[in-house]
Amino acid sequence: MKVRHNLRDVARQAEVSVTTVSRYLNGTLDLPAGTRGRIDAAVTRLGYAPNLQARRLSLGRSDSIALVLPDIANPFFSRLAAAIAARAEEAGKMVTLHATMNRPEREAAAIDLAVRNMADGLILVTTDPPPEAVLHRLARVVILDEDVAADAPRVLCDNRQGGELAGRHLWAAGHRRIGYIGGREDLASTAARLEGLREGMGGIAPVSIHADVHAKASGRHLALRFLARRAGETALFVGSDELCVGVLEVFRERGIRVPEDLSLISFDDVRSLHLFAPAITAITQPVEDLGRCAVDLLLQGDWDDPAFRATTRRLPVHLTERASVRCIGQQETDTDPNKEKRS
Amino acid sequence: MKVRHNLRDVARQAEVSVTTVSRYLNGTLDLPAGTRGRIDAAVTRLGYAPNLQARRLSLGRSDSIALVLPDIANPFFSRLAAAIAARAEEAGKMVTLHATMNRPEREAAAIDLAVRNMADGLILVTTDPPPEAVLHRLARVVILDEDVAADAPRVLCDNRQGGELAGRHLWAAGHRRIGYIGGREDLASTAARLEGLREGMGGIAPVSIHADVHAKASGRHLALRFLARRAGETALFVGSDELCVGVLEVFRERGIRVPEDLSLISFDDVRSLHLFAPAITAITQPVEDLGRCAVDLLLQGDWDDPAFRATTRRLPVHLTERASVRCIGQQETDTDPNKEKRS
Repeated sequence: MKVRHNLRDVARQAEVSVTTVSRYLNGTLDLPAGTRGRIDAAVTRLGYAPNLQARRLSLGRSDSIALVLPDIANPFFSRLAAAIAARAEEAGKMVTLHATMNRPEREAAAIDLAVRNMADGLILVTTDPPPEAVLHRLARVVILDEDVAADAPRVLCDNRQGGELAGRHLWAAGHRRIGYIGGREDLASTAARLEGLREGMGGIAPVSIHADVHAKASGRHLALRFLARRAGETALFVGSDELCVGVLEVFRERGIRVPEDLSLISFDDVRSLHLFAPAITAITQPVEDLGRCAVDLLLQGDWDDPAFRATTRRLPVHLTERASVRCIGQQETDTDPNKEKRS
Repeated sequence: MKVRHNLRDVARQAEVSVTTVSRYLNGTLDLPAGTRGRIDAAVTRLGYAPNLQARRLSLGRSDSIALVLPDIANPFFSRLAAAIAARAEEAGKMVTLHATMNRPEREAAAIDLAVRNMADGLILVTTDPPPEAVLHRLARVVILDEDVAADAPRVLCDNRQGGELAGRHLWAAGHRRIGYIGGREDLASTAARLEGLREGMGGIAPVSIHADVHAKASGRHLALRFLARRAGETALFVGSDELCVGVLEVFRERGIRVPEDLSLISFDDVRSLHLFAPAITAITQPVEDLGRCAVDLLLQGDWDDPAFRATTRRLPVHLTERASVRCIGQQETDTDPNKEKRS
C-alpha cells in the first residue's frame, strides 16, 4: 500500500510554507513559475491527493463536474457537452464547461478554475498529455475522445474500426488509390484511423496524407494541397465533419464533383450530412454514448482501486451510407480484401 | 442618490442572522424555500448588491464570466459561446458555461454556481424573465439574444429587421401566401419577426403560424402540422436552422421539393446551409458580434450609472440569398410593397 502524504510533506519538499501550498492548490494564490514548478514536482513525486471532500464540506458542496474541451463551436464537441450535461443532471450534478482551443495556458487556467471551484471531477478533452501534477490536483479526472498519455481512465471511440469500415467500403466500391485528410499525424486518433484504413483496404496505404487541426479553414487549406498534388486518387477519407465542410467548399469552387470526380467519406457525422448535396457517407460517432460513459466513469468508477485508472472504454462506431461514394466497377466479391484475408 | 444597504439590513428585514444571509448569498448554505424567499425579498426591496470585490479579494480572484444558455448542442448557441470565450480571453477572463435547456431549476442551479464561484458577471440567455433577486446576487448581468423583462442591459439581434428582409424577399419573388414556423409565440423574438415579416410583405400576415421550441424534433412536428393544414401557401419562413433541419427532413420524406413545390427562408444561418440540397436562403445572424458585444457591455459598461441598465444593443442581420426561394412570376417592381409604401 502507498504511504499517504499530507500537505506538510509537500511543503517540506517544495521548500515553501504549508499555507502557500494550500492556497496554491486551491487556486487562490498566484506564484512565480519556479515556486509553482517546485510544488507541482513535490505533488507528483509524493503522489499527493488533496482531501477535496474535506475542503468541500468546509466551504460548501460543489456538485459540479468540470468539462474542459478544445472548441465549443465544433458540433462534435457541443453535442458531446450536451450529452455530458444531460447525464450529469440525472446524477444531480451541474456541468461547468471551459473551451481551451487546445492552448496549454488556457487549459491550465480552466483546470485552475475547476480546482478553485471545487469541482467533483474533471472530464478532459485535449490533444496534449496533461502535466501529471494537474491530475493530482483533482481527485477524479477522466480523459475523453483523444487518447493522450495520462494516469487516468479514458473513453474513446474506436478510431481504428472507423478507419477500417471506411477502407472496406471504398475497397468494395472499387477504389484502390485513396487520399487521407485528417487530424495531426502525431495524435493517437489519426494513427488509429490510418491503421484501420489501410487494413480495410487490404493493406494498401493512402497515396497522400494531409494533416492539420480539425477546423473548416484547415479543411480548405488541405483540400487545395491535395488537389495540387493529386496522383490518381479516386476517393478521399476526411477525418472530421469540420474538415469536410472546408473540403466541400473548395471542391465546389474548383468544379470537382462528389462523387462523380472524387468519392468521399467523412468522420463524426455530427453536421446535417444527410441534407448536404450530395448526402455525405460518414463514419458515425456514438456522441451521446461517449458523453454518458465519461460521466458514469467519473461518478461511479472505483477510484480507490489503482487499476481503475488504467481503464479504457472504446465505443464502437458505424458507417452510415449515403451518396458520396461512387462505385467504380471493381467491386466483384472475390477482390474483397476481407474475403481474401479470410480465405 | 440611493442609500447603500448592507448585509445587516438584509438580515434584519429577513429575520435571519447575518451569517445566514451571507452564506446563502455566496451559495454555501441550502435553506428552506420560505427563508430563501424572505431573503430574496429583502435583497430586492433594499436593492442590496453584495460587495463582490471584497469577497473576491478575501477568497482569491475569479477572473471568470459565467455564461448561462439553453442548449449547447444548438450551433447558434455553441458559436455564440465560442465568440464569448474568445472575446473574454482578450480581456484576460475565462468563461464558465452552463446549459439549462430552459428549465428554471437548472437555470437557478447554474446561477447559484456562478455566485458561489465568484464570477465577475453573468451573461444570461433565457426565455423566461429571471427573478429580480437573481439579478441582485451578481453585480453584473447582461441579457443576451432573447428580450426578456429584467433590470439589466441587453444585446439582441434585430429580429424585426430579419422578418422584414425575409418578407420583402418573398414578396419580390411573387409570394403572397406564406406560412411561419418558429419559436414560441409568447417570446419577444417571435413577435418581432412576425411583425417584420408582415411589414416586408406589405401588410399581408402569414396564413398559418406554427410555434414551438427551436429544436429539430419540433421542426418535424410543426412541418407535419403545416402540411396537414396547408391552404395555398407557396413559401415558408422558418425561425431557426434547428427547426429548418426538421422541416427539410419531413419535406424530403413527403416528396415536397424545395423550392419547386415550396420556397423557404431560414433564420440564423449557423449550419452549413450553403452545402445543403438545395442551398438554403437565410437571415444571417451576427453571431460573433453578439458575443463580443455582450462581453464588452459586461466588462466595460458604466455599472454605476442606473441608466446603463436600460441599455439595449440591437445588432443588424442580413439576408443571404441562395437557392431555396423560387420566383413565381409576380415580381414586377410596381408590386413591391416597399416601393408602394414609398410612393
